[in-house]
Amino acid sequence: MQDQAGTLIELLHSDTAYPSGSTVLEVGCGVGAQTVTLAQRSPEARFTSVDVSADLIAEARRRVDGAAITNVEFRQGDIFDLPFGARSFDHVFVCFVLEHLSRPVDALASLKDLLRPGGTITVIEGDHGSAYFHPDSPAARAAIQCQIELQEGAGGNALIGRQLLPLMIEAGLDAVHVSPRMVYVDSSRPDLVDGFTRRTFTAMVEGVRASAIAAGLSDPASFDAGVRDLHRTTETDGVFCYTFFKGVGRRPGRSPR
Amino acid sequence: MQDQAGTLIELLHSDTAYPSGSTVLEVGCGVGAQTVTLAQRSPEARFTSVDVSADLIAEARRRVDGAAITNVEFRQGDIFDLPFGARSFDHVFVCFVLEHLSRPVDALASLKDLLRPGGTITVIEGDHGSAYFHPDSPAARAAIQCQIELQEGAGGNALIGRQLLPLMIEAGLDAVHVSPRMVYVDSSRPDLVDGFTRRTFTAMVEGVRASAIAAGLSDPASFDAGVRDLHRTTETDGVFCYTFFKGVGRRPGRSPR
Repeated sequence: MQDQAGTLIELLHSDTAYPSGSTVLEVGCGVGAQTVTLAQRSPEARFTSVDVSADLIAEARRRVDGAAITNVEFRQGDIFDLPFGARSFDHVFVCFVLEHLSRPVDALASLKDLLRPGGTITVIEGDHGSAYFHPDSPAARAAIQCQIELQEGAGGNALIGRQLLPLMIEAGLDAVHVSPRMVYVDSSRPDLVDGFTRRTFTAMVEGVRASAIAAGLSDPASFDAGVRDLHRTTETDGVFCYTFFKGVGRRPGRSPR
Repeated sequence: MQDQAGTLIELLHSDTAYPSGSTVLEVGCGVGAQTVTLAQRSPEARFTSVDVSADLIAEARRRVDGAAITNVEFRQGDIFDLPFGARSFDHVFVCFVLEHLSRPVDALASLKDLLRPGGTITVIEGDHGSAYFHPDSPAARAAIQCQIELQEGAGGNALIGRQLLPLMIEAGLDAVHVSPRMVYVDSSRPDLVDGFTRRTFTAMVEGVRASAIAAGLSDPASFDAGVRDLHRTTETDGVFCYTFFKGVGRRPGRSPR
C-alpha cells in the first residue's frame, strides 16, 4: 500500500508547495490524510486545518503529531461560517470537499474572501464518471451510477472534477488553470491494482450497496454483479482508469508579496 | 490549428525516437500524418511506411516530399500479408490501425515476426469510451455510442485504447508498457476547443449520422440533439476529455545491438 499511496500523493500533490512564512488554510481536513502531505512538502509555511467534525480533527491531530509535524494548527468550523476574518490567509487548499456541497460556488466565493488579494485557491476533486475499464461491463457502470445518483440525492456531485474550471470562474477567481491527474491501472502496476482499483474505487462502490438497494436504484443481484465485474478488472488482463482534477485560481487584486 | 496539432503531436509522439541507422516499419501510414512527425523526429533512422491503399500512399509521398524528408520509402501492402521477410526491421510503429481490425492480436503477432529479437512495437490508439464532458448529456453519449456500435459492426473496436496491454501481451510481446495520453480541453485552451473537440471528435461523430440512422441506432432528432450537446461543450463553461493510449512492447530474445 505504501507505493500506491506514494504514487497517488505524487500525482495529486507534487506541484503544490507554499513559500516560507505564508499562511495556508486547509478546509475539510478530515482525518488529516492530505494535511500530513501538505505540511511536509511546505515545512516553512504555516497551516490552519479546519473540519466541521471535532472527532475527525482529533484523529487528524494524532496523525500530524505522529509525523512530528509542528506547522499545523487545527480549528473546528463549517465551510460556510469559518471563524476567520476577510483577507486572513495567503492561500487556501480544498481537497475532496466540494463534491459533497450543494452550493460549491458559494463555498469557493466565501473561501476567496478569506484570501489576501493575489492569493491562490487550490481545489482537488475526483470524478466518478471518469471511470472506465476493461473488460467493460454495463452492470459495473450501473453500480457506479448508483453511487453518482445517491451523492446527487444527498445534494453533492460525484461528477464535479470535470467542472472545476467553470465553477472556479463563476466564484470570481482569476487565472484559473485546471489539470487532469489520470490514474491508469493495469497488471504491470500491482500496487495500484490493489490499492486503487480494489481498495479505493471498488470498495467505495461496494459501500453504497445497502443505500442503493434501499433507494430502489438497484437490486442485490444486479448490484453484486456490477461489483463482481469491477473486481474482474483487477485480473491480469484487466485495466482500470480514473481521473482526478486539480484547479488553481487566484483572488483578483495585487499580490501582497 | 497549428498549436492544436503541435499539442497533440507532442502528447502522442514526444517519447518516440529511433536510433541512427535503425530500420523502422510504419504500418497503415494513411496520408502520412504520423510519417512526417516520425521521420522528422528520428532523422537518422530509415522508415518503410506501408498502407493498403495506393491512393493514400501517393498522398503520403507528396506530404513527405513537401517536407523535404528523405529517410522514408513507401510500399503498398496488407497488414496480414506484408512483402517483408521475418526479422526485417528493428522497430515497428502502428498508429490508429488496430481499432479497424477484427483480429488485432493476429496483426500484432504478424508484425512481431517482422522484428529482430529485442526490437520494439509501438502502438497508439484512441478510445471513444474515454470521452466525457461538461455539460454531461445522455443524448451526446448516445450519439457517441452509435459510432462505437457501427465500428463494432464493421469488425473494429472503438474502445481498443484501454485494451492495449492485454492485446500486446496476448500477441507474445515482452516488457509491455502502456501509458495514457489524456486530452483535457477547456476554454483556456481555445486551440484544442476548436481543433480537437469541434473539428476532430465532434466532426467524427457527425460523420456517422447517416449510417447510424440507416442502421436504426438513432433517429435524426435524437442524433442531432447529441451533436448539438457535443458542440455545447465548446462554449466558455464547457469541458471535454478524451484519452489516447500508447503501448510499447518488445519481441522476446536478445537485442541485435
